[in-house]
Amino acid sequence: MKKKKQKVNAAILIIGNEILSGRTQDKNVSFICKWMNIQCGILIKEVRIIPDLEKTIIKNTLDLSKQYDYVFTSGGIGPTHDDITSKSISKAFKVKYKFNSEAYKILENYYGKLNFNEPRQKMAKIPDGSKLIYNPSSAAPGFKIKNVFCLPGVPLILQSMLPNLKKFLVKGSVVYDKNIYINSVESKIAKDLTKLQNSYKSKIEIGSYPFFKSGKVGVAIVLRSTNKNIILSCNNNLLRILKKNKIKVLNG
Amino acid sequence: MKKKKQKVNAAILIIGNEILSGRTQDKNVSFICKWMNIQCGILIKEVRIIPDLEKTIIKNTLDLSKQYDYVFTSGGIGPTHDDITSKSISKAFKVKYKFNSEAYKILENYYGKLNFNEPRQKMAKIPDGSKLIYNPSSAAPGFKIKNVFCLPGVPLILQSMLPNLKKFLVKGSVVYDKNIYINSVESKIAKDLTKLQNSYKSKIEIGSYPFFKSGKVGVAIVLRSTNKNIILSCNNNLLRILKKNKIKVLNG
Repeated sequence: MKKKKQKVNAAILIIGNEILSGRTQDKNVSFICKWMNIQCGILIKEVRIIPDLEKTIIKNTLDLSKQYDYVFTSGGIGPTHDDITSKSISKAFKVKYKFNSEAYKILENYYGKLNFNEPRQKMAKIPDGSKLIYNPSSAAPGFKIKNVFCLPGVPLILQSMLPNLKKFLVKGSVVYDKNIYINSVESKIAKDLTKLQNSYKSKIEIGSYPFFKSGKVGVAIVLRSTNKNIILSCNNNLLRILKKNKIKVLNG
Repeated sequence: MKKKKQKVNAAILIIGNEILSGRTQDKNVSFICKWMNIQCGILIKEVRIIPDLEKTIIKNTLDLSKQYDYVFTSGGIGPTHDDITSKSISKAFKVKYKFNSEAYKILENYYGKLNFNEPRQKMAKIPDGSKLIYNPSSAAPGFKIKNVFCLPGVPLILQSMLPNLKKFLVKGSVVYDKNIYINSVESKIAKDLTKLQNSYKSKIEIGSYPFFKSGKVGVAIVLRSTNKNIILSCNNNLLRILKKNKIKVLNG
């Protein structure tokens, strides 16, 4: 494992016309965001969703690769004509798009020689110099080139591969959170929350999110920090404020 | 209604730490993408998800506003300290962040004079020169400034407001689609799909998406075009290809 850093950030690049047409509801963003924080202390700071267009993939990969410690892409590494992520990322980094012998062997072994046809072979073509991210679900590996990690779009397959890219990542500090649900409205606590946030400055991030459930309205107050003691202290102060305002806490 | 254009594009800017932390599953992207295409013929070409940070909101709003015909933002227009979209977008366009008298009246009328406290009043502060987007669910209006349309993050409220921003938009050509589900794997049809796509060039967009349902695998082939006759013709050619390859179509 590499040395732990205080703050490690990353971006997600979702590549796929099916998300932008609204046909497919993305499920990878929330999964990757949570997983990266909890497992690696890596914070996702930006997400982009773009179409399957070579120029657009190249531009956004390079943009995000420069701005963030890591980039996780999802989608476009399958066997069909609309899967152009591997080729586009080869072009982005000006390296050859070619057969990776290890990936080729993995796929040939998985499908069997007779069924290892040209479209399936295509999945062994990746940017030259990449490292493989193993796929325990359906064999076709993802790959890492520079600080960019390319994963498939199918959520269950992507999820099964995340543990296999952990070894490439420098770990950062996990952000812990506490959710306090109240049966009130945001405007009743807004002023006090502003004061509370100001008193902790950037040591904690206080979020306020109205919710509507079974005909009832309420607010979820979310405290987020890398320091559990600060969450505890802020939570105690928040409970005092809520008590003073006679606002009921719904979860404990 | 304004004059119809052939191609009208747009971007979505989701503003909210709760999406990037993975706490909240975004539901606005797929809804807006579908709605804009079907109702207005407007195609979403990019989505960005960013945190509640003034500098980041300013940079991304200006970036997207220059690149696309329209930008739809979601989130950060509520009454609490973490709602900084209106103020940030005022800064982006270098206009005053001030009370809009119409928005003030709408909110005062909705809450009643006695309950119209400071946090609620804040929701009437928007960029100077904006036009209001009415909110039939919870009164607090969204607003339009230049080609940027600011909407709330709560999906049901956002959805109820979309019809009220239609009047500001130039309509484009709707992209129609046809989904053909087959009980096969992508690699069996990849070569034929490539040929089919090439024969139609950019007149149609053919997507191929594997699916896994109740233990079965299959592929959804999606044909998308502004021209229904081209979809029909491509569909006929596709059915011939599938028949030739003895691949069963699951939906008809």
